[in-house]
Amino acid sequence: MPRSTLLVQAHPRGDSLTAQVVETVRRKLLADGGTVDLLDLYAEDFDPRLTPADEPDWDDREKEYSPEVAAHMERILAADDIVVVFPVWWFSVPAILKGWIDRVWNYGFAYGRSRPRLAGRRMLWLGLMGISAEESAEKGFTAAMDLGLRVGISEFCGLPDARLRLVHGTDLAGLPVALRAGRVAEVLAEAEEAYAEFDASALRSPEAAGRP
Amino acid sequence: MPRSTLLVQAHPRGDSLTAQVVETVRRKLLADGGTVDLLDLYAEDFDPRLTPADEPDWDDREKEYSPEVAAHMERILAADDIVVVFPVWWFSVPAILKGWIDRVWNYGFAYGRSRPRLAGRRMLWLGLMGISAEESAEKGFTAAMDLGLRVGISEFCGLPDARLRLVHGTDLAGLPVALRAGRVAEVLAEAEEAYAEFDASALRSPEAAGRP
Repeated sequence: MPRSTLLVQAHPRGDSLTAQVVETVRRKLLADGGTVDLLDLYAEDFDPRLTPADEPDWDDREKEYSPEVAAHMERILAADDIVVVFPVWWFSVPAILKGWIDRVWNYGFAYGRSRPRLAGRRMLWLGLMGISAEESAEKGFTAAMDLGLRVGISEFCGLPDARLRLVHGTDLAGLPVALRAGRVAEVLAEAEEAYAEFDASALRSPEAAGRP
Repeated sequence: MPRSTLLVQAHPRGDSLTAQVVETVRRKLLADGGTVDLLDLYAEDFDPRLTPADEPDWDDREKEYSPEVAAHMERILAADDIVVVFPVWWFSVPAILKGWIDRVWNYGFAYGRSRPRLAGRRMLWLGLMGISAEESAEKGFTAAMDLGLRVGISEFCGLPDARLRLVHGTDLAGLPVALRAGRVAEVLAEAEEAYAEFDASALRSPEAAGRP
């Protein structure tokens, strides 16, 4: 059964390495017979600032959020998989992506119910990071990001079938110009492999994961 | 010698508990004879989305950033201390605060020089967190936030004299209404104590910290 994927992009430039990774993943998903809803947060002019309209009301989990947020919730509900591609800025996600979580992954929708509405979906956090895998792991940043994103967000929202995968060495400016094209190809291949591993290791069947 | 403090506020509502903590800290700073530059990110309509104008150019650490960012850089340079008050959302900072870091704490200004321009400043990250100190510590979130904010941002920018302090149990909705005013008073007292501890434990003298 073909899967539908919400593919989230969080980089200001359409010619960025992040955008190229998104395009690589998108082609892979389509080649596999799936459908893709591409959410380019910058291109759609998403405002990451949570305002009172989207502030959780702990006394009312049925609160109606802003129309913009409600539309984003529908896009999440329509997806089997959520794949988020982002550059790692300050050992975390860019503000525009943090705000998508702050506003859309809200109380009564993403959490706060005995039966999570998002249950059964799979989620991949795919980050592009300048420093090496060794340095990030040794200093504890990889584990801290995994805790904050996979555990603190995905698992908290009833999505145990989530992964954080980082592709390292993505700051091309440190490379001689002649080597950059080769490194881009490597990054795209690593990202495609990261997606393939996620796809293979995570549960395949919505039914198996208890999705209604 | 009176100290100048850049006091950063990151909550959408002016009547929030976060805003009350900011006001408590502001009064304390003024009572101590200091000066305060209050930066209310929401009230100043700060846009947290980094655009190409503020994207670091790894080949040019003298890059001129946008006028808005340049003005924020001046406010940081004018301060002896930087105190950031925020609600903990998703075990991290709100998007508007993340964007202030993404855009303003930029290459060539906050990092990327052999002699850090911000050296000698002290920094306090003061977060309001719903869950208990025990739960946050046990699950690793406290350590992960400390690594991401104090080490990954402040220390990375040459500010070893930085602290993360969390005030817990700040979700008042879980309390009976009759108990909320008392809890507010406790939170404000804990926040003032957290500031006082920071002020006492961090270096007092700009000279001692090697600030030019």
